[in-house]
Amino acid sequence: MTPQAAYDELIRRVREQATLGACIALLEWDELTYMPPGGVAGRAQQLAYLAGLEHGKATDPRLGELLAVVEGSPLLHEPTSAEAVNVREIRRSYMRLARLPRTLVEEVARVAPVSQHHWAMARQEGDFELWRPWLEKMVALKRQEAQCLSANDPYDALLDDYEPGARSDDIARLFAALRQELTPLLAAIAQSRKKPRLAILRRHYSLEQQRSFGMEVAAALGFDFQRGRLDTAVHPFSSRIGPGDCRITTRYSPNQFSDSFFAILHEVGHALYEQGLDPAADGTPMGEPPSLGMHEAQSRLWENLVGRSLPFWKHFFPRARQVFPEALGEVSLNAFYLAINHVAPSLNRVQSDEVTYNLHILIRFELEKDLLSGDLPVADLPAAWNRLYQKYLGLTPGNDADGCLQDGHWSEGMFGYFPTYTLGNLFAAQLFDRVRAEIGNLAEQFHQGDFRGLLTWLRRQIYLQGSRYRAGKLIEIATGKPPDHGPLVRMLREKYGELYGI
Amino acid sequence: MTPQAAYDELIRRVREQATLGACIALLEWDELTYMPPGGVAGRAQQLAYLAGLEHGKATDPRLGELLAVVEGSPLLHEPTSAEAVNVREIRRSYMRLARLPRTLVEEVARVAPVSQHHWAMARQEGDFELWRPWLEKMVALKRQEAQCLSANDPYDALLDDYEPGARSDDIARLFAALRQELTPLLAAIAQSRKKPRLAILRRHYSLEQQRSFGMEVAAALGFDFQRGRLDTAVHPFSSRIGPGDCRITTRYSPNQFSDSFFAILHEVGHALYEQGLDPAADGTPMGEPPSLGMHEAQSRLWENLVGRSLPFWKHFFPRARQVFPEALGEVSLNAFYLAINHVAPSLNRVQSDEVTYNLHILIRFELEKDLLSGDLPVADLPAAWNRLYQKYLGLTPGNDADGCLQDGHWSEGMFGYFPTYTLGNLFAAQLFDRVRAEIGNLAEQFHQGDFRGLLTWLRRQIYLQGSRYRAGKLIEIATGKPPDHGPLVRMLREKYGELYGI
Repeated sequence: MTPQAAYDELIRRVREQATLGACIALLEWDELTYMPPGGVAGRAQQLAYLAGLEHGKATDPRLGELLAVVEGSPLLHEPTSAEAVNVREIRRSYMRLARLPRTLVEEVARVAPVSQHHWAMARQEGDFELWRPWLEKMVALKRQEAQCLSANDPYDALLDDYEPGARSDDIARLFAALRQELTPLLAAIAQSRKKPRLAILRRHYSLEQQRSFGMEVAAALGFDFQRGRLDTAVHPFSSRIGPGDCRITTRYSPNQFSDSFFAILHEVGHALYEQGLDPAADGTPMGEPPSLGMHEAQSRLWENLVGRSLPFWKHFFPRARQVFPEALGEVSLNAFYLAINHVAPSLNRVQSDEVTYNLHILIRFELEKDLLSGDLPVADLPAAWNRLYQKYLGLTPGNDADGCLQDGHWSEGMFGYFPTYTLGNLFAAQLFDRVRAEIGNLAEQFHQGDFRGLLTWLRRQIYLQGSRYRAGKLIEIATGKPPDHGPLVRMLREKYGELYGI
Repeated sequence: MTPQAAYDELIRRVREQATLGACIALLEWDELTYMPPGGVAGRAQQLAYLAGLEHGKATDPRLGELLAVVEGSPLLHEPTSAEAVNVREIRRSYMRLARLPRTLVEEVARVAPVSQHHWAMARQEGDFELWRPWLEKMVALKRQEAQCLSANDPYDALLDDYEPGARSDDIARLFAALRQELTPLLAAIAQSRKKPRLAILRRHYSLEQQRSFGMEVAAALGFDFQRGRLDTAVHPFSSRIGPGDCRITTRYSPNQFSDSFFAILHEVGHALYEQGLDPAADGTPMGEPPSLGMHEAQSRLWENLVGRSLPFWKHFFPRARQVFPEALGEVSLNAFYLAINHVAPSLNRVQSDEVTYNLHILIRFELEKDLLSGDLPVADLPAAWNRLYQKYLGLTPGNDADGCLQDGHWSEGMFGYFPTYTLGNLFAAQLFDRVRAEIGNLAEQFHQGDFRGLLTWLRRQIYLQGSRYRAGKLIEIATGKPPDHGPLVRMLREKYGELYGI
């Protein structure tokens, strides 16, 4: 068999895997949007069956044979060619799965939904003990998984699944630097006399108008409704079902404008990335983002750096006042702008602002490292959580439901996932900083409602690059600098200094 | 291997096939309801891939081995036991597929969408010639298919796929008898002085109210919205995605009440059947209807025998007047009842009434038999079509778009499908006749809005029986008589005699 023939078969096989993945994505999307309650049991069965097929394809020893033929051949001569990148990534995921014993994979799959179920109960009851034994089991399983994957740091082994090539030491350094800068900024904001009128965001906003305004803004940013949809779900998410089919969801509350609106912008950011990937490379690594952090960078960029900016609202606020005359008729742009950028330490990650968000992540990062290393016994998690919230945010949760039970990631075994949120924020700021430098009048363009310059730049520099480079390297190529906290800190200081008159 | 072990493996395998079928059903439902236009190419690929997997499972030689072990064993001693029925039906579909050469299956799959595409163009242009070569190809392929399937009549070989066990001679006899009775009834209606005020159905009916009224009636009939949905699609259909997930669609026009409303009732009829099948037998033949005719019987029963009856509207008309005060406020129950039961010969099958509907089917049945036998060359189809419309309905289409291009069944290769519509009408009348005899005050129950008696009877006699018996046998067991045109003719005479004062 020639290297070319082996490569062609590899590509055919990963594309079949991607097709199965697309079917799974649709089944999952439907489960969260339109499926009637009676469909639950059937859907679980359908998903388990397709996931089994996908796993069988992903671990088929034939992949190993084909990789052996093509690796080292002149076909992969150029390390950033589509061929070399695809083979590198296929090898990576094949080895990852090959290293995990089937019994372990099945045990994690078996425990995850039970653990999730007990976590949800524990959160509802505010009783950590209901979840504790399952979290202990899950931590033990993930430590085992980390050992199978790598002889190095167990945390890095798991992190690598979400953020290939990243190392926890580097991330810890970024966090430390970030924290050092954010703490005084947060203190200064706390002492500012400026107090936002948050009540204006809690007036009556009709659901139908929220939806149509959200769609109007999404389209203006570049979301292509010919290749996507916006629906309603309990938790906002974005889902890629195929190259021409990227769907997003949000949730609406009649007395809350910003939750649903910024969730739309966040998911639009994810979807712009998916809609901007190279369609010719669809179903192969070259047609996929390099990491979760890079994906999150797009959502945070469009949500915060675009959607919570003054130029953006200079354009959209007059329209928002037309659409919601009752709620916003008498509100000034400045009052609105301050309200949507309210900064205050809080106990809740999801509802937190741009300044404190990364402190919430830092806490989780430190705790999950210690859980995995064994330095922190699961039983001590609530106390450790509360201690860190007091230390970094000056608050202590009144109960574990508002504390260590608020996020479901660990219940599913997602350890090493949290730092990708902060990497996303850092990457977003670096990219935005660079675009502003390259496009001198970017703010003016936003003010005019024109976001094409930004989108075109991101498509070329990031979206069309797929997995050609690791995320850190891609940031370096696009911005001239490796991952760095500088731009994010500067932007936050600039924006919030002005807003709060610091 | 013991017969029991072979049987268990057979069941596991057909259940996997059913799971794949459920995934396909969801992908198809989504394509027709919510999928954005950009998803078309990806969806075709996803469906082709899953269909390939399903075909591979359905033709796996292992099925033949397992069948050989279990057949003739004491396990199948009782011919109407679940075991015997499941093995009988698995054998049937396995043999059917085993007889078809792979090249022929692939050729039909390749030609069908092209033929459909040219049919749609031909219909739009009113130009039969655009489609003719593709129809010729399709007829040739289906004749080949029929030859592979059976040495007997080619039409029966194809019919058997939709209506197992049915024979075209029997169907021809039923049609002849039916025609003989309907022709004088139709002539008498034509001479009646009573003229319905059709304009009342073409007033403004708000889409949102049509939808909520339709849902209200669907729920009253017994459609379980916890295990189903109602959505909008270009062509109404019902889709079973899983045992607890049966979805229906309709289409709305703001100036047409009856199209969308009766489409809902029709699809509700299909869905009540699906929702009433034995969930414990899900994924096996015992959990499936025995034929398309039996399925259509349920849709026609609920649409026509229930939904176009006077007792039904005695209950629902006051509510309809509340919901559509503008359109129906000044309309009497009798005027409304006459309008929704308007009878007149027409050129269009889908829009035709209860009396003429089966004549439309008879024409298609005669033509498709002659196309398959070769007695009718494809080139002569338009003329033959027009001749039969003149003969049976006294009308000649002005062009082929209103004539032989109106239905898409043949373009996809669905020969032998049409008679199941009329079998459905006959079965429905026989079942309804029997229920009326068993439940003395059925009309009074409808008048009270109570349809539980009817549904309970159908569930017990038909739905829970699955594929235990062939459709004709099931009718005989449930009603005491084999398939027969008598009850339908009697009901039509009774209803329309009264309505038109004959």
